[in-house]
Amino acid sequence: MNDLMPLTTEQHLLILNALNLTTAFMGGAALLFTLLRSQVASAYRLALSLMAAAVGMASYHYWQLLGGWKAAYVLQGGTYVPTGQPFNDAFRYADWLGTVPLILAALMLVLDIGRRKSASLVARLAGAAVLMIGLGYLGEVQHENLGLRAAWGAASCVPFGYILFVLWSELRGVLRFETPRVRELFTGLRVLLMASWSLHPLVYALPLLGLGGAPAFVLGQVGHSVADVCAKVFYGLMIYAVAREKTLSEEMLLGLEAPREVVRS
Amino acid sequence: MNDLMPLTTEQHLLILNALNLTTAFMGGAALLFTLLRSQVASAYRLALSLMAAAVGMASYHYWQLLGGWKAAYVLQGGTYVPTGQPFNDAFRYADWLGTVPLILAALMLVLDIGRRKSASLVARLAGAAVLMIGLGYLGEVQHENLGLRAAWGAASCVPFGYILFVLWSELRGVLRFETPRVRELFTGLRVLLMASWSLHPLVYALPLLGLGGAPAFVLGQVGHSVADVCAKVFYGLMIYAVAREKTLSEEMLLGLEAPREVVRS
Repeated sequence: MNDLMPLTTEQHLLILNALNLTTAFMGGAALLFTLLRSQVASAYRLALSLMAAAVGMASYHYWQLLGGWKAAYVLQGGTYVPTGQPFNDAFRYADWLGTVPLILAALMLVLDIGRRKSASLVARLAGAAVLMIGLGYLGEVQHENLGLRAAWGAASCVPFGYILFVLWSELRGVLRFETPRVRELFTGLRVLLMASWSLHPLVYALPLLGLGGAPAFVLGQVGHSVADVCAKVFYGLMIYAVAREKTLSEEMLLGLEAPREVVRS
Repeated sequence: MNDLMPLTTEQHLLILNALNLTTAFMGGAALLFTLLRSQVASAYRLALSLMAAAVGMASYHYWQLLGGWKAAYVLQGGTYVPTGQPFNDAFRYADWLGTVPLILAALMLVLDIGRRKSASLVARLAGAAVLMIGLGYLGEVQHENLGLRAAWGAASCVPFGYILFVLWSELRGVLRFETPRVRELFTGLRVLLMASWSLHPLVYALPLLGLGGAPAFVLGQVGHSVADVCAKVFYGLMIYAVAREKTLSEEMLLGLEAPREVVRS
């Protein structure tokens, strides 16, 4: 829960817009990923279904954040002042707890790792993700004791580092049999995941860096929203791109359907 | 955020009806475009899926605008007077930020441009769209300084001009291999896009032209809604028409299924 401060109409509106647009983005993506399932081979449909569920859950969470945001402020004499109703920013952690394991599982499912190895990787990555989010949450609720906030935050970075290690180091081998285009897309996916996830610890660290007040708060809320859209909607589109690419090259190998470019020429 | 003024019951109802009808149109279109996917070849389903997501997001945003509109006024002695609750017209910009890149991508996807060229075009068009909407937003929130509003508005017209240039000039070549009917539909699509998008700068310019007061406000709200329905619902139907036309002619070429008209004659 944040200690809220008075905001200008522009600052209040910027956060309102960010929460509202993210709700819409996540909901639109839930429909889109559902519809895109038919465009990929059966083996990759679970990955897209998990992504649809993840963004559907995120849309609901952002809609709750939006409702909380509307209730937390009232316009008085041209300035938005807190009503005393809390704005539960910690809903974000609840969202991540549910959605992050899903988006990591989707990544494993579009690669052909083999069922046994894939299940073991998903279990380890999901475990690390739950630990990362739980430790971060313990620090997030520390508003007075900044030393404790820093300690929990640092602890939370350890499982994050483990996840990055698995994605970069352990998964190097499984890409050997993929086409150059799939390898390229997979590298893009890993970079997107690392970059968007890294925005959250940056926002988390703002109070530790002595950055407070309304501008830092607005930056933090908008930053979390942008990071979530990148880590779920754009990430999901890249999961689709990998699945579609592999579907097309498998169909070509099996001679089921000549790709359109060939038919035309 | 608008400085709201008292409205007659007819004026208030006209805006209420426009927002409500647009919510329904967009939601109905989301269902329709979802259902129409099965009528087009696999290659064009992504385009229809993107259109379904775009109108779904727009329906949500209009539903939010509608709720804001209801909260912003109260009927007192036969006149609608502002309650002091803001009407966040800026939600429209948030909507466009999410949906305009999708509808531009849908247009590229129903043409057979080739994957690499298509990706480059979508990236450039989406980038220009984000710039156009962002610059417009900076001007939209200027209610006192009309010179600044005019300057941001003029800046916003530069990326709009670039988008029109790409659609008219760069895409001339790709239509060479299309049937006359597809070329005709594509011309219709471009004209519809240009005409409906142009309504927004006209509404934006009303305060600059010294047109204020309730009639200009009502005209602006209804104008934005009509433009959005044209640029998303009717535009999406034309995207479907192009996809369906190409699906039928490809099926005929491949001899998979004779089109019904031929069978009948």
